[in-house]
Amino acid sequence: MADWQEIPGSITAPRGYRAVGMAAGLKPSGLPDLTLILSDVEAIAAGVFTTSQVRAACVDYCRERLQTKASARAILCNAGQANAATGVLGLEDALESAQALSQALDMPSELILLASTGVIGQRIKLDALKAALPKLVASVSEDGAESAAKAITTTDLVTKAIALETTFHDRPVRIGGIAKGSGMIHPNMATMLAFVTCDAAVSPPLWQQMLSRAADCSFNQITVDGDTSTNDSLIALANGQSRTPAITEAGPEADKLEAMLTEVCIYLAKAIARDGEGATCLVEVQVSGTTSDAEARQIARTIAGSSLVKAAIFGRDPNWGRIAGAAGRAGVLFNQDHLQIKLGEFLMMQQGQPQPFDRAAASNYLRQAALGAYLKEDTVAIAVSVGDGSGSGKAWGCDLSYDYVKINAEYTT
Amino acid sequence: MADWQEIPGSITAPRGYRAVGMAAGLKPSGLPDLTLILSDVEAIAAGVFTTSQVRAACVDYCRERLQTKASARAILCNAGQANAATGVLGLEDALESAQALSQALDMPSELILLASTGVIGQRIKLDALKAALPKLVASVSEDGAESAAKAITTTDLVTKAIALETTFHDRPVRIGGIAKGSGMIHPNMATMLAFVTCDAAVSPPLWQQMLSRAADCSFNQITVDGDTSTNDSLIALANGQSRTPAITEAGPEADKLEAMLTEVCIYLAKAIARDGEGATCLVEVQVSGTTSDAEARQIARTIAGSSLVKAAIFGRDPNWGRIAGAAGRAGVLFNQDHLQIKLGEFLMMQQGQPQPFDRAAASNYLRQAALGAYLKEDTVAIAVSVGDGSGSGKAWGCDLSYDYVKINAEYTT
Repeated sequence: MADWQEIPGSITAPRGYRAVGMAAGLKPSGLPDLTLILSDVEAIAAGVFTTSQVRAACVDYCRERLQTKASARAILCNAGQANAATGVLGLEDALESAQALSQALDMPSELILLASTGVIGQRIKLDALKAALPKLVASVSEDGAESAAKAITTTDLVTKAIALETTFHDRPVRIGGIAKGSGMIHPNMATMLAFVTCDAAVSPPLWQQMLSRAADCSFNQITVDGDTSTNDSLIALANGQSRTPAITEAGPEADKLEAMLTEVCIYLAKAIARDGEGATCLVEVQVSGTTSDAEARQIARTIAGSSLVKAAIFGRDPNWGRIAGAAGRAGVLFNQDHLQIKLGEFLMMQQGQPQPFDRAAASNYLRQAALGAYLKEDTVAIAVSVGDGSGSGKAWGCDLSYDYVKINAEYTT
Repeated sequence: MADWQEIPGSITAPRGYRAVGMAAGLKPSGLPDLTLILSDVEAIAAGVFTTSQVRAACVDYCRERLQTKASARAILCNAGQANAATGVLGLEDALESAQALSQALDMPSELILLASTGVIGQRIKLDALKAALPKLVASVSEDGAESAAKAITTTDLVTKAIALETTFHDRPVRIGGIAKGSGMIHPNMATMLAFVTCDAAVSPPLWQQMLSRAADCSFNQITVDGDTSTNDSLIALANGQSRTPAITEAGPEADKLEAMLTEVCIYLAKAIARDGEGATCLVEVQVSGTTSDAEARQIARTIAGSSLVKAAIFGRDPNWGRIAGAAGRAGVLFNQDHLQIKLGEFLMMQQGQPQPFDRAAASNYLRQAALGAYLKEDTVAIAVSVGDGSGSGKAWGCDLSYDYVKINAEYTT
């Protein structure tokens, strides 16, 4: 059983954090587009960023910053322009925005981290951003988490936010998080951003390790369309304001903190997959029986990302052959005579042999799961076992609908 | 300049080959579904098969056969049931079909290769197949290539066939080929099959090397939806009936034969991509400036397979940012400041900086290319350069349309 509970407040639930989101005129729509997350004191900072060779200026900026010093006090996020594939001019814009916020907050610019989301190839509307900074700084508060969660979105249908609380030495320790996903209703909007706050005290290398591992089994295990953004960023702060003893090495306390951090990341990752463009349902793929967890995650991600599997789920077609096909091409060796496939409670393949099942009932299961998706109750569950190994892993995705094509094609240039 | 010319006749254009396709009652539709390709004499045989861990019985059968002895006289292909993910029973069916053909042809069964395409998880309708064999064997002829090209298709919109001729020592040498692609109008139909005949004399290891290299820059460089079939098979025969001297080692003659073989494979591969389910146009991606050809092919394949790029092309949206994004996540290191992107004649990015271009004209280019697609005149051409390296490569794909989703989702179970 998890020894934590969900609490309100997302990123400002941990002590010593304030946030705000506002409309600064960066998005053509006039919707909120500028976000500030602020820690009262210097916080340990860790980050996981896109692996793409084509990266946004903010990603290069944050990577370099965190390599020099793994701490920060502020995260500034603009939505509307991705500032990716903008070359040296884009990097200058990023530096100038950090410099401007540094003056407005009266703190060294090396305590500021940056994130951007929006149209690739467009530079930040720097004048509008700078003009909005005084108001942004004046508005930041402990009640601002909701506006921040809103302002980092582009065309997400819902905001994604959570906070969990546990106790260390009888004192509360909290982790909060917000995220945006890939609701690409406008072209080129395709960024996964997540910001996590924590009030535990933890050593920088340990915090980075925890975050990297948490990302590997959460954000790195969701797929909407297989495209990796130029701007993907996950940044996590830990400011020690819980006043609990510092966690500086592996052990039960580190495990407990990492488990809660992982839970926050998985919650946000699933929320992103559920809100994938055009999606009508969340698909959870569980794979077991591999030699390693990494192999299981690889197979799970391949199944969740298969266009054929996704289209079949949209069509409410219990098409296990496509699941078998996707598992087979995942790049992980296994003996197909050991393959087992379940869709919900329906056993479709065992020991590599097709099994008889009630197709109408299985199709109805898919229909019901989709209906329940936005109530966050039901999920299309695919379970695959490929052998006797102890490895296991999960991945999350969504179905492939007409609306995906519509959202991504029907844009008049 | 190519020193070969296109000739009619596809797989029976090379000397000493006969073929036939007929309706054997394997497909519910009653359309042609059984194919026989026959060499008058024992031919050198090479094969390239799916890399999936979930394979059809015919794939395992052919792999084992060719490892034992790299020659064959006959290829039997059934359409309708993929005989994949059918376990040991499926393998028994495959062996039985080879045995039955062996009796009908009065030749050892080890001279027979097998291929299947159709619904995953369904075993071959063996009774219908065996009942049809006498008529199949009686009908095989030098005029049967067209019926064979038709009978290997499932829901392809067009048949794919070609033959090329060159001369060695003043004698004609010919290579013919037929293929089927992934017109997955029924669920689970997703197989790439290609059969190539050649009348040159060539040593077995050299022929296999040529075929593997040709596959690497043709069939392995097309993508319709990123899913790899359980049944993908490319089989090539070389029977020596051109009566030209045997080619047994690397050199100008081997190079010439391999170039023609590669041309046949590329022609068939492009025809498959053009006929991808729901496709309205062929997309050709050329990548240069990498360290190796393999890296260039990897980037090209990633761009051609990107759902976002494909949806943009369907929307006639000259969305170069998505091309940059796909190039960046291909898993190949490069400096984004050296990135250059062209769509047709439109230069969109140079030295990593966005370039001004006429969006309306570029969108019109996409519209025109799509209109021309089925006339085989025009293609959407994407050219990407990532540096100064000498590596280059191409990949082919198609756009992502509403019909793709419709074809793959709207099947009532």
